[in-house]
Amino acid sequence: MRLALAQINPVVGDIAGNELLISNAIADARAAGAALVCLPELALTGYPPEDLLLKQHVLEDAAAALERLAIDVDGIVAIVGYPECDGAVYNSAAVLADGRIAGSYRKNHLPNYGVFDEHRYFERGTSGGLIELNGILIGLSICEDIWTAGAPESDEAEAGASLIVNLSASPYQAGKGTAREEMLAARATENGTAVAFCGQVGGQDELVFDGHSLVVDASGRIIARAPQFEQWLLTCEIELEQSEFSPPAGAPVELIGSFTTTPPSDDTSLDHILARVADDDDAVYSALVLATRDYAEKNGFNGVVLGLSGGVDSALVACIARDALGADRVTCVTMPSQYSSKGTYGDALAIAQALGLELIELAIGPLMAEYDSLLAAPFAGREPDITEENLQARIRGNLLMALSNKFGWLVLTTGNKSEMAVGYSTLYGDSAGGFAVIKDVPKTLVYRLCALRNARNDHPIPQSVLSRPPSAELRPDQADQDSLPPYEVLDPLLEGYIERDLGSEQLIEEGFDPATVARVIALVDRAEYKRRQQPPGIKVTGKAFGRDRRMPITNRYKG
Amino acid sequence: MRLALAQINPVVGDIAGNELLISNAIADARAAGAALVCLPELALTGYPPEDLLLKQHVLEDAAAALERLAIDVDGIVAIVGYPECDGAVYNSAAVLADGRIAGSYRKNHLPNYGVFDEHRYFERGTSGGLIELNGILIGLSICEDIWTAGAPESDEAEAGASLIVNLSASPYQAGKGTAREEMLAARATENGTAVAFCGQVGGQDELVFDGHSLVVDASGRIIARAPQFEQWLLTCEIELEQSEFSPPAGAPVELIGSFTTTPPSDDTSLDHILARVADDDDAVYSALVLATRDYAEKNGFNGVVLGLSGGVDSALVACIARDALGADRVTCVTMPSQYSSKGTYGDALAIAQALGLELIELAIGPLMAEYDSLLAAPFAGREPDITEENLQARIRGNLLMALSNKFGWLVLTTGNKSEMAVGYSTLYGDSAGGFAVIKDVPKTLVYRLCALRNARNDHPIPQSVLSRPPSAELRPDQADQDSLPPYEVLDPLLEGYIERDLGSEQLIEEGFDPATVARVIALVDRAEYKRRQQPPGIKVTGKAFGRDRRMPITNRYKG
Repeated sequence: MRLALAQINPVVGDIAGNELLISNAIADARAAGAALVCLPELALTGYPPEDLLLKQHVLEDAAAALERLAIDVDGIVAIVGYPECDGAVYNSAAVLADGRIAGSYRKNHLPNYGVFDEHRYFERGTSGGLIELNGILIGLSICEDIWTAGAPESDEAEAGASLIVNLSASPYQAGKGTAREEMLAARATENGTAVAFCGQVGGQDELVFDGHSLVVDASGRIIARAPQFEQWLLTCEIELEQSEFSPPAGAPVELIGSFTTTPPSDDTSLDHILARVADDDDAVYSALVLATRDYAEKNGFNGVVLGLSGGVDSALVACIARDALGADRVTCVTMPSQYSSKGTYGDALAIAQALGLELIELAIGPLMAEYDSLLAAPFAGREPDITEENLQARIRGNLLMALSNKFGWLVLTTGNKSEMAVGYSTLYGDSAGGFAVIKDVPKTLVYRLCALRNARNDHPIPQSVLSRPPSAELRPDQADQDSLPPYEVLDPLLEGYIERDLGSEQLIEEGFDPATVARVIALVDRAEYKRRQQPPGIKVTGKAFGRDRRMPITNRYKG
Repeated sequence: MRLALAQINPVVGDIAGNELLISNAIADARAAGAALVCLPELALTGYPPEDLLLKQHVLEDAAAALERLAIDVDGIVAIVGYPECDGAVYNSAAVLADGRIAGSYRKNHLPNYGVFDEHRYFERGTSGGLIELNGILIGLSICEDIWTAGAPESDEAEAGASLIVNLSASPYQAGKGTAREEMLAARATENGTAVAFCGQVGGQDELVFDGHSLVVDASGRIIARAPQFEQWLLTCEIELEQSEFSPPAGAPVELIGSFTTTPPSDDTSLDHILARVADDDDAVYSALVLATRDYAEKNGFNGVVLGLSGGVDSALVACIARDALGADRVTCVTMPSQYSSKGTYGDALAIAQALGLELIELAIGPLMAEYDSLLAAPFAGREPDITEENLQARIRGNLLMALSNKFGWLVLTTGNKSEMAVGYSTLYGDSAGGFAVIKDVPKTLVYRLCALRNARNDHPIPQSVLSRPPSAELRPDQADQDSLPPYEVLDPLLEGYIERDLGSEQLIEEGFDPATVARVIALVDRAEYKRRQQPPGIKVTGKAFGRDRRMPITNRYKG
């Protein structure tokens, strides 16, 4: 059997645009001689459509698009993810064949943890679904369905399936590629079936999807794999045995339909590739680039702007922005004050030059003086403190937003996850902007990604940026490590507290210093109000701030 | 039977503090001669604890607190809401009696819509639960359980219950009081049982709970009702029939235990009140006051600060702040520019004076000039536009935040729901702050609440504030109605689009002008990115921005 997996990049809500992507993918798959083509989960609406699914007219529009798509499907069977409205709403896979919608499989396992809210929108399906195609039985499943052993895949295999297809929109996070491949291989060998996994690709607000479409044979061996982080039509030839549909007693499994297609003539070319799996810092970098490009382009921005301080965070964001959008769509701004060092100022110039980016210079000294003068009366008798530091950051935020307003640019913020965690940032200051590129990247990973990017030909980040002790440069001789534990200690501690939900006792048992644990937990808890007002940013870890971690602001738990 | 409903105001996460509130309530109920006392849903952690429930050590701390509470419960039965960890986690009601935890009822119906995410945290219980107290059977239920007819209450009634108690944390919204009473009366008459509803009171981030504890007899008549929006121990005497536990065939109902208490001596006083139900604009005002007070106090702020423009929105917020915290904890700031009219300036002074609030004056002209001068080079050849308007708002935001930093005050923002909906606000400008008091109050309701507040003795809002056409005063002769439809049209249109999820066709069918519908929908959709960075504010309508409405930012749906 010749099989195609269409790893498309839909836009949430763009039903007409997604319909066109799907229709083109089906035509391309048929041209490549495929008997079966799979599209990702909820391909028609894009994933996740969130509360668009609560609007009846959105569901009706999706249903109408599916009807239109079906008309042209001939000589191939297409499995297309869509929201099915039938009294309740289901996360379904439509079987399009012979010019009509032959039936649907409804997702059995609805994730409702982490970033997922599927119980908010969907009723679960309660049976497996198969199609027969040229005498071969194929089981259908959607995303979460396949992450655990058992039904519906085991029922479908028992009913005779020699192939399970899975329509997915599986968000990327570091390490997920390997986990996904191990899981798919386990499902294949457990059930004695081949598995074809078709993933959505692209950025959608805080999520980025790596695609990672692949085909595993019944022995668990990967026989085809699409490149990650780009649109791809993966085609491959796989040997599958014919069998009779024999549903196991008591197991709810439905045969949706039987179809035949004509095998391709011998001269149909087949692009059967086995791309390298990316699942390391390289993949994180690719994820950040793709998500930044998609956020800017899907939201219609002609360019982006960012503050380039000469520090490591903004250096990395400048590289990502340039790689995502090209040098002529990225503008940098350096906004020195009397606390900015010559070193960082010079490094900002060097980075912009190496990346070929325009650099605007706006010295903020006069504005600082003007705020001080206006506030002299109400602040009479008070010493300078963090107030004046925050004002500098907010002046810079205002200037970036003014450029954004005037030129239509998206402001990229440059704060990392470690800072975001402990509140080491100024609300409406350095955190002001539309997209927080490295919001979920811990500081230690920021350094690794800089080194990785610097290994390319243009090596744009001067060594001085990487070796200088990190500083916000908001007062004389400031250094991050005056206020915070070293990042080599802080980052693993934050990982334990945030990603693994450990309490202070457990963290101390893991070997962290009790005073440091108490201080860091207090900082993290106290900064919740700041995080609630951050721009969206890209999830790349097991638990990102945002919809992935829903903490109350008003919270007196101390633990 | 003498019954007590303890309408307490817990703090989320403050397990030790909540334990003390509960323990005091139980002691007070016993002193009042009650045989049974009910506490609200999840009283031990406060509601909603959100992702605190994903932390094992939080669940363990709650379990330990429950054990401690049980020890002192004697001569009374206490029903206490808590998160029960038994392999899975349940939203449970513990039965405390005779110095021990006699058992638990597990919530059957878990809401996972609107602001609720209970499937994220809990497994559902699958049986009803009763206790026998002095020969009387009492059925247990938790919040959502009672909002629909049927099990578990119908099973509990069939098993012999003559009273159903319901532990709730039921967020307030306009009209909910009436709906709740009608629902409770319906449940009582359907099942032929009395119903006792015990509600949490207080503000928690975006939610405010009105308490509204009440007792309905089996005929559906309300026989006791606590005042809303304050802590209260409601006690009442109710005639209930004894019966035998006889579980219906096939229905899963558990008898948790049988208990006896000594009836009170005759001289125990009973405060049996039937407070007026508040379910109109008065209730909305009370909700805003309580939520503002609780947000400030539960988060440890010594005072609040707000920009007082002389417009109707900030006038209302000043009244709410003053009523919530007292005049000496509220500071106002007037920040005139050359576009501010003498009328609004004078009105700001008058409002502050009438409310007895300190007013700081900071004229922003020099800062505007300094920004213009710094940006002259990059803006060369461009006309002034919304950029300069936003800069004014952001200067004001910076000044309020500087006062907040220096004096530890919470900044209250003053934007209303109509503005928030169409994006008629400046990100990091007028929307900069910690708590958005009237974020969910449409402009037409703002006027009604001002009129209502003005009816009190101090009538603090000058008539000119209410009669002047609304304006942001960011350019000469600006008026809201130049950019927006009249609020009398806009507000109902927004209600249809946001609260009822109607599409453009449906709105046009309801009689709205097609061009206005298209314009307003586009404005609402385009402003999603702004709303994502707003401070939390108080839900008072059927669908608030925030966790109640989860829309993608990247969203090309046009409908």
